[in-house]
Amino acid sequence: MATLQDICVAAAINILSAFAFLVAFAILRLQPVNDRVYFPKWYLKGLRSSPKSSVALGRFVNLDFKMYMRFLNWMPAALKMPEPELVEHAGLDSAVYIRIYLLGLKILFPITILTLVVLVPVNWTGKTLELAKFKNLTFSNIDKLSISNIPTGSKRFWAHLVMSYVCSFWTFYVLYKEYKKVATMRLEFLASECRRPDQFTVLVRNVPPDPDESVSEHIEHFFCVNHPDHYLTHQVVHNAVKLAKLVEKKNSFQNWLVYYQNKYERNPVNKPTIKTGFWGLWGSRVDAIDHYTDEIAKLSEEMFNNVTFIQEDAERERVIIDPKAIVPAAFVSFKTRWGAAVCAQTQQSKDPTIWLTDWAPEPRDVFWDNLAIPYFELTIRRLLMAVGLFFLIFFFMIPIAFVQSLANIEGIEKVLPFLKPLIEKKVVTSVIQGFLPGIALKIFLIVLPKVLMTMSQIEGFTSLSSLERRSAQKYHLFILVNVFLGSVVTGTALQQLHQFIDAPAGEFAKTIGMSVPMKATFFITYIMVDGWAGIAAEILRMVPLVIFHLKNTFLVKTEQDREQAMDPGFLSFATSEPRIQLYILLGLVYSVITPVLLPFIVAFFAFSFLIFRHQIINVYDQKYESGASFWPDVHRRIIIGLIIAQIIHMGLLGASGADKSTTPCLIAQPILTLWFHIFCKGRFESAFVRFPLQEAMVKDTLERATEPNLNLKTYLQDAYIHPVFKGSKLDIPVVIDEEENNPLVPTKRTSRQSSIHSFDVSSEADL
Amino acid sequence: MATLQDICVAAAINILSAFAFLVAFAILRLQPVNDRVYFPKWYLKGLRSSPKSSVALGRFVNLDFKMYMRFLNWMPAALKMPEPELVEHAGLDSAVYIRIYLLGLKILFPITILTLVVLVPVNWTGKTLELAKFKNLTFSNIDKLSISNIPTGSKRFWAHLVMSYVCSFWTFYVLYKEYKKVATMRLEFLASECRRPDQFTVLVRNVPPDPDESVSEHIEHFFCVNHPDHYLTHQVVHNAVKLAKLVEKKNSFQNWLVYYQNKYERNPVNKPTIKTGFWGLWGSRVDAIDHYTDEIAKLSEEMFNNVTFIQEDAERERVIIDPKAIVPAAFVSFKTRWGAAVCAQTQQSKDPTIWLTDWAPEPRDVFWDNLAIPYFELTIRRLLMAVGLFFLIFFFMIPIAFVQSLANIEGIEKVLPFLKPLIEKKVVTSVIQGFLPGIALKIFLIVLPKVLMTMSQIEGFTSLSSLERRSAQKYHLFILVNVFLGSVVTGTALQQLHQFIDAPAGEFAKTIGMSVPMKATFFITYIMVDGWAGIAAEILRMVPLVIFHLKNTFLVKTEQDREQAMDPGFLSFATSEPRIQLYILLGLVYSVITPVLLPFIVAFFAFSFLIFRHQIINVYDQKYESGASFWPDVHRRIIIGLIIAQIIHMGLLGASGADKSTTPCLIAQPILTLWFHIFCKGRFESAFVRFPLQEAMVKDTLERATEPNLNLKTYLQDAYIHPVFKGSKLDIPVVIDEEENNPLVPTKRTSRQSSIHSFDVSSEADL
Repeated sequence: MATLQDICVAAAINILSAFAFLVAFAILRLQPVNDRVYFPKWYLKGLRSSPKSSVALGRFVNLDFKMYMRFLNWMPAALKMPEPELVEHAGLDSAVYIRIYLLGLKILFPITILTLVVLVPVNWTGKTLELAKFKNLTFSNIDKLSISNIPTGSKRFWAHLVMSYVCSFWTFYVLYKEYKKVATMRLEFLASECRRPDQFTVLVRNVPPDPDESVSEHIEHFFCVNHPDHYLTHQVVHNAVKLAKLVEKKNSFQNWLVYYQNKYERNPVNKPTIKTGFWGLWGSRVDAIDHYTDEIAKLSEEMFNNVTFIQEDAERERVIIDPKAIVPAAFVSFKTRWGAAVCAQTQQSKDPTIWLTDWAPEPRDVFWDNLAIPYFELTIRRLLMAVGLFFLIFFFMIPIAFVQSLANIEGIEKVLPFLKPLIEKKVVTSVIQGFLPGIALKIFLIVLPKVLMTMSQIEGFTSLSSLERRSAQKYHLFILVNVFLGSVVTGTALQQLHQFIDAPAGEFAKTIGMSVPMKATFFITYIMVDGWAGIAAEILRMVPLVIFHLKNTFLVKTEQDREQAMDPGFLSFATSEPRIQLYILLGLVYSVITPVLLPFIVAFFAFSFLIFRHQIINVYDQKYESGASFWPDVHRRIIIGLIIAQIIHMGLLGASGADKSTTPCLIAQPILTLWFHIFCKGRFESAFVRFPLQEAMVKDTLERATEPNLNLKTYLQDAYIHPVFKGSKLDIPVVIDEEENNPLVPTKRTSRQSSIHSFDVSSEADL
Repeated sequence: MATLQDICVAAAINILSAFAFLVAFAILRLQPVNDRVYFPKWYLKGLRSSPKSSVALGRFVNLDFKMYMRFLNWMPAALKMPEPELVEHAGLDSAVYIRIYLLGLKILFPITILTLVVLVPVNWTGKTLELAKFKNLTFSNIDKLSISNIPTGSKRFWAHLVMSYVCSFWTFYVLYKEYKKVATMRLEFLASECRRPDQFTVLVRNVPPDPDESVSEHIEHFFCVNHPDHYLTHQVVHNAVKLAKLVEKKNSFQNWLVYYQNKYERNPVNKPTIKTGFWGLWGSRVDAIDHYTDEIAKLSEEMFNNVTFIQEDAERERVIIDPKAIVPAAFVSFKTRWGAAVCAQTQQSKDPTIWLTDWAPEPRDVFWDNLAIPYFELTIRRLLMAVGLFFLIFFFMIPIAFVQSLANIEGIEKVLPFLKPLIEKKVVTSVIQGFLPGIALKIFLIVLPKVLMTMSQIEGFTSLSSLERRSAQKYHLFILVNVFLGSVVTGTALQQLHQFIDAPAGEFAKTIGMSVPMKATFFITYIMVDGWAGIAAEILRMVPLVIFHLKNTFLVKTEQDREQAMDPGFLSFATSEPRIQLYILLGLVYSVITPVLLPFIVAFFAFSFLIFRHQIINVYDQKYESGASFWPDVHRRIIIGLIIAQIIHMGLLGASGADKSTTPCLIAQPILTLWFHIFCKGRFESAFVRFPLQEAMVKDTLERATEPNLNLKTYLQDAYIHPVFKGSKLDIPVVIDEEENNPLVPTKRTSRQSSIHSFDVSSEADL
């Protein structure tokens, strides 16, 4: 069991490493050569095209030493941008995402103050642990500040009971306010948005086959009949998996071609050659440039055979793939937002498994591979994935349990007695206990998200945002079982197995309740490693930095290439949100048990808020904009955390045998929480999943008045086109569908840019 | 513990009493004087106006002795009517309701045959119980046929495991077929229905207050703006609670007035007098007829003050109550079914707690008192009722446990040793063990439904059908916990407490699994009392028979009075469906445990099917028609029963220590069941809760073509009017809203009548 000293050593290590990351960041970001790594967002928005030029700055290295003096200036700069501007600059998703950190602060900061003031004195003056010393039980100084120090059956437990209620009600209050605020922000965001294709469009899936008509005709007829006043047009979906693979292969060859061309240019004496076999390790040696040029030509031809041209409008040429590759799904557009809102919310056919209509995700957000999965297959897939998730979660337990047992010095000494002399050195002890459990867990967790995302893809969700939300749900479950429960139960099971084995089984809450206080030190180290140093590493962006410079050296020829070499990254909701939830859960659980743990969490939230606010302003470029549709999930998971905390408090107080009357007092808490959840769900959730007709009507009316001559059909014609058919990659002229490029539809983007630019000047002046 | 002989005695008693009920019914129903008690449906449908006249029949007593010879002829007659005709005659609700009995038969009859053939030999040849005799354990012959007779750890348990899977898959198959069938029936029923106000109407609740407009104006403006092409008209809802009470009071006085008038006519010498005090026990003595005439006049005046007249259309007079009594809810009607379907399924305002739209229940089905409950109050009410239900369910345990302990002869002898000589007489033993537990339980259960219905009303549901469904849900939970689990655990707890007390707590499934086989005899007696004799008593209609003759003697003066004196009754879904679920649960649980219990259940289902089919043809008059919207509930509860059965099998096999490998084999079962439930829910449930636009469009188009000049507004004007304003009770001319009385809308009713009439002739010829 870690002592107070171990904690201090770990804290020192983590604070120092976090500080080192920050200093490195402060220096690296000032170098002009790294400008595209640390400020890619401004490049992508077209607000910056080269590093700030200043007389004192060098070409690659910043020589203006005054700027190094103010190396922490990015922190106030990150906080300066007001929220409405942030929403406009980075999108609602990002702006709301960092509100989760703020929410953590809002919930936990007052609770921290309150519990430190009220409960720490109550706990400290209990004398149980000092007496227990004689009973062969180990404990640390931290435990003296925790509920473990209260003698069994003491009246002091009433203080904890009352505090548990106070914490719950405070959380209710903050959650309610926040849900209301986010719902309002979402509605305002949707209302203020300019025209977008997804406002008029509905995704129709499971179009039944028709013997006489093609899919396209069938869709047109169905909607002409059933939505006669509103149907406008539709776009069928193509199965472009094969084509997408070809495009990807071609891009890779293109990169190699550029690489060898560059090599050749710099050293025209040696013409670069490669071997044609596996990974260039064997096979006949050929000229590299010729080889890739040939391959690319071959691929272009193959792609050409996969597509056919349709002459449209006389001057426009459209490209589609083989008509046989049309899948039974389509994006159906309506004349008005009202018509689309109606179609998205109603059932079309009496068979609820065909003609499924959902509001279309925005074009960037569509996950194209999943649009054509029949109903039965979908339910089977979900069943299999549920079973798979169960096994994934419960077989992952085994390695974690092993690492956990290692983290216990006494345990190692018992298992491997020959290591005793090494381990008993103070420094080694502190390192093992402070670092190892946290890092081992962390490595496991890095492997996981990709697996979970693949599982979600198999489940058949049709948009990237829903895939991320689903993966987050799985990940959260995983973290709950493996990180939280796994750490609490397994660690304790090894320590106190002999105490448990005689007691009757099944008293799960009590078991956990009893072991939670003893894991406080473990979680403190975990928070420091994962929360402090990990977040500081995030801002340094080591991996994108290295990759950018590699690409810049070997592949970049033009400005456009450099543009593409940037990897701004994005906020990954699926991996980071469940981790925030773990911290909130820990905060709620330990609020009345070991209040000294809370300041560590509060520090994490404050630090993360700062860093991520900086990142979303300067770095991240979100792949899609879902209008904060993840908030109900965030809310629900905090409620889950709250209920878990309440049950643990119940188990702990029950097991500590406070009064007989405490358990009935506490049982009302989870019921109230459930009710609060149902109340909030009814009150706010529909803002995130439904589409009020009144709002749609207002926007329609406004639009009719301001733009009576709008040709909506042209606007929507090619909005939902598979990304493979987009851009110059295909070497075929395709219709450009991006809103801003469509001359028919002037948007507000230009006016927005100027407003951002004015901010840009002020906020970047500090650099 | 009941022996085989006890069971036989109980069976004899119950079969005899059931037979006695049937004979009594066969005789009573042939008496012309009882015709309105046993065939009220035909009178209500206007297909019969007086008892069948025949030369041989007397005025009050049937003298045609040939008819007594064929006294069981009603049974084939009840089965003769084909299902489509039954739907037309009695409504879809009733027709689908008796399909629940059929479903029970379909599930359990093949299972019965199979388990009797396969498992009884397997169980019989196990020798455990004969050995156990020496270990001071009591058992009956029934137990020899059950799983208790298999020795611990035997390979024979694999037979039970396989049978458990076979039963589950057979149940899946039948449930799927049945869900599909009922969904089809519902869709066909809705499609074939003639025009009804609820097809065009949406119930709007939580209309927000507006400072400038009345509720009615506000509603009109809102829907004119947001559904401009579809909005037709609306009717506001009045708070008529006070008026309804006055009407009720007046009706009661009217009855007394008629009673005293009749008395006076028969005996003109004594003018009847009453005392004016409490219950006529004291106070000054006045002339009864004058007193009631005065009171009625007073009430009429009071009612008059509560309402105001509005002159409409010149010749029509409408009555409404005080405008201040308008509640913020309304029935909004649309020009097309499509428009109504759209409005019912979409969200209107961005605040999801106002402008709530739901498909309107049919006018008879509306529960008027609950239309104006604000959102917050509604959630509070639901919370309180959930807590209330919890206490109701768990405090009801106590009396049941007491009665259960009485049902055990050995228990009584221990508690009250002086009763020993009496109890040990064979007959008394059999009566106590065969009858008492069943009847005591039954009495408890009769008290309950009214309480549950009141609780559902407080929860704020807006239609009678949803109230019934909700009450059924509560009642089902109650039966599960108190009748099923209560009987299994409590009974056993008293018998085997000493065996349990040492084992670790929490192994709930195992505990139940072990005690279930021992309760088989109890459930057999319960099935006989509740299922056999109880159902036979249903057909005799003792209470309506007595009340009808009382009313007929004292109150009836005209044919119309006699019409009103009839009490046809109705199928009470809320009380009887959960009981069916109990039988299905018992069948599924005991299928692999004690297969000899199953024939009793199968007999119950066959007998009930017969009797209820007779009743819905000849007697019951449903209060509303919901189009079998209760089927998803029925399906879900059978799934719940199946999962409980599977868990019990798992616990039993786990506790019997079959192989270690059986429990993992069985754990897949509940998961598969859950998946099956989700699959069916997605596949069929929407047919019961949503309204496909395609269907609406088809009906609209058809109607436009066949009746181009239909004045829908007039048709819908007064469809949703509070029942207080209806009929002649108010002595005020009101607009008649019943579809059949509206001259503008010719319905198919007349043509339907003739088809029923033709059936009537054939089926009644047997009488």
